[in-house]
Amino acid sequence: MLRTAMPTAVPTPPSHPFLSACRGERPSRTPIWVMRQAGRYLPEYREIRSRVSFEALCRTPELCAEVTLQPIDRFGLDAAILFSDILVVFDAIGVPVVFNPSPQVAAPVRTAADVKALRWGRAADHLDYVYQAVRACKQALTGRVPLIGFCGAPMTTASYMIEGGSSREFEHTKAMAFTEPALFGGMLENITTLLIEYLAGQVAAGADVVQIFESWGAAFAPDDYRIHVLPHVRRLVAECKPLGVPIILFVRGNAGLLSQIRDLGADVLGVDWSLDLSDAIDVVGTHQVVQGNLDPLTLLGPAALVTEKAERIVVAGRSARAHIFNLGHGISRHTDPAMLQHLVDVVHRS
Amino acid sequence: MLRTAMPTAVPTPPSHPFLSACRGERPSRTPIWVMRQAGRYLPEYREIRSRVSFEALCRTPELCAEVTLQPIDRFGLDAAILFSDILVVFDAIGVPVVFNPSPQVAAPVRTAADVKALRWGRAADHLDYVYQAVRACKQALTGRVPLIGFCGAPMTTASYMIEGGSSREFEHTKAMAFTEPALFGGMLENITTLLIEYLAGQVAAGADVVQIFESWGAAFAPDDYRIHVLPHVRRLVAECKPLGVPIILFVRGNAGLLSQIRDLGADVLGVDWSLDLSDAIDVVGTHQVVQGNLDPLTLLGPAALVTEKAERIVVAGRSARAHIFNLGHGISRHTDPAMLQHLVDVVHRS
Repeated sequence: MLRTAMPTAVPTPPSHPFLSACRGERPSRTPIWVMRQAGRYLPEYREIRSRVSFEALCRTPELCAEVTLQPIDRFGLDAAILFSDILVVFDAIGVPVVFNPSPQVAAPVRTAADVKALRWGRAADHLDYVYQAVRACKQALTGRVPLIGFCGAPMTTASYMIEGGSSREFEHTKAMAFTEPALFGGMLENITTLLIEYLAGQVAAGADVVQIFESWGAAFAPDDYRIHVLPHVRRLVAECKPLGVPIILFVRGNAGLLSQIRDLGADVLGVDWSLDLSDAIDVVGTHQVVQGNLDPLTLLGPAALVTEKAERIVVAGRSARAHIFNLGHGISRHTDPAMLQHLVDVVHRS
Repeated sequence: MLRTAMPTAVPTPPSHPFLSACRGERPSRTPIWVMRQAGRYLPEYREIRSRVSFEALCRTPELCAEVTLQPIDRFGLDAAILFSDILVVFDAIGVPVVFNPSPQVAAPVRTAADVKALRWGRAADHLDYVYQAVRACKQALTGRVPLIGFCGAPMTTASYMIEGGSSREFEHTKAMAFTEPALFGGMLENITTLLIEYLAGQVAAGADVVQIFESWGAAFAPDDYRIHVLPHVRRLVAECKPLGVPIILFVRGNAGLLSQIRDLGADVLGVDWSLDLSDAIDVVGTHQVVQGNLDPLTLLGPAALVTEKAERIVVAGRSARAHIFNLGHGISRHTDPAMLQHLVDVVHRS
């Protein structure tokens, strides 16, 4: 079983500000990392991608580690996040996906027969290349900063299989939930089992923290989210608690969903940029650790604007139990890396 | 001046339930219309579109009237909405746009020189074909139901010019707002002037009500919306009040924005499906008239689900000053027209 794999030889110092904040302690300074920090806005990332496809990169542990560490070497960020994609789990169940660059699933999964045909049993065992990547990252990090593993939330993950790729309206996903709730629920239950095993595998390989990405939380109206989606997120969080690492739950488009996810037991709640961080803290309570939430496109503006907005978020975060600075969504590929450095400096000196 | 054009020869009966609700009275039954009710889900619409392009349809008043009346003839809806597109105003200022089917602007407007080159003066005079379409609709309706005219809100309208079409991230729009706020603000001011004249032209031609569509309200974080967008919406509403017809303001992605737009003076606030109608009423107050907010994709589900959800929304709406039933966004092209008929029947008998 993956859970009993040998722990990594390079433990993370327990006093790191990011881990302290995850545990609800107040570190001496606000830690910062940013979603998609290893990515296309970095010339050193584009250099690797000029030689290697996205799919090959995800499947090559040494390159994953190299890319994962690029923003750590550059910016003085407080956490690394494994370079991978939430859709690598499709490999495990036999759903071919290509990235062009947005993900495309040529054979969408929409019927009971489609769902049954997938390779559900011990699916996470097929993701050993990811666990190897986690080990390679930990070795390369030599304890400098903690490593975050991750997965998509059940519905976000499923939506790509059902829609056949990215979607604006999620019409197939919602039509399935509305017309065949048992089929939809069964599929999400299977995916949730896979995700639990997958996160266990990442933790066994050395991930210090895990983040669950509900990137498409806004696909469902609040009532429908509560009925069709929330139970699976609840189970995912609950069954990952025994892994013993902090769990960050990030729900995008969450202004109306924060009140649903605040009590699931996640150690940290990620807040997107659609609401003021202070309003989010009002909803989730000052006993919660929060992460967020600068609009990533702010980094396309002038440095003075970034300073002003970042400082306001740091101040707002002080009313939470602890605050991890992050963007409210992935960094834009149009970002000047110098502006991210400016942001890191502003947060660290605030 | 368009404002002094002859009123239509076919006035709408002042006691119609939709108009009563717009005025804050409680009609005997909940009126219903649905956004994009004249559109691709209707076979009789697709029949016309098989012969006429979308652009030509928008520019042919008699066909606009025919299409506008199709859902009125079919469903017993309580209001007609002019068949047109928020981007026809681009004609007026000399920005070519094509629909493939999503709108595409080959020459985006991003610099001061781009903005200055446009044909801003008396731009709304170039939209006479829309006013003719309004007159044709009113003639064809023969007073059966009121006619809604409409426009996009200033930022939503501008975003298509700046992005060059639809967008997910609005990176050019936001980069302009953040880096050149005076240029962005000046452009929105010009567009707002155009929209005021355009709505005046529609009202002079006979529109009984106007709706302002802020379809991309969620593009900006609350603070940025307040700074860069809200002043223009405020001016648009304020300067349209003297037209003397009810103004509906619909902001999509508005969970965090309702508190900003509730006090602008709009007669009716449209609520999207991202929050429960009862929560929306909590935010805007029970003295407000609200419109909404069934998730359009609910209509892809079974009739019993539509019944249950529609009835719950009707009940929630009773705590508002008045409630106009609508979808929380445009109807999906995949909708079975029979399901919309079912929805209309459920709302009317509730």
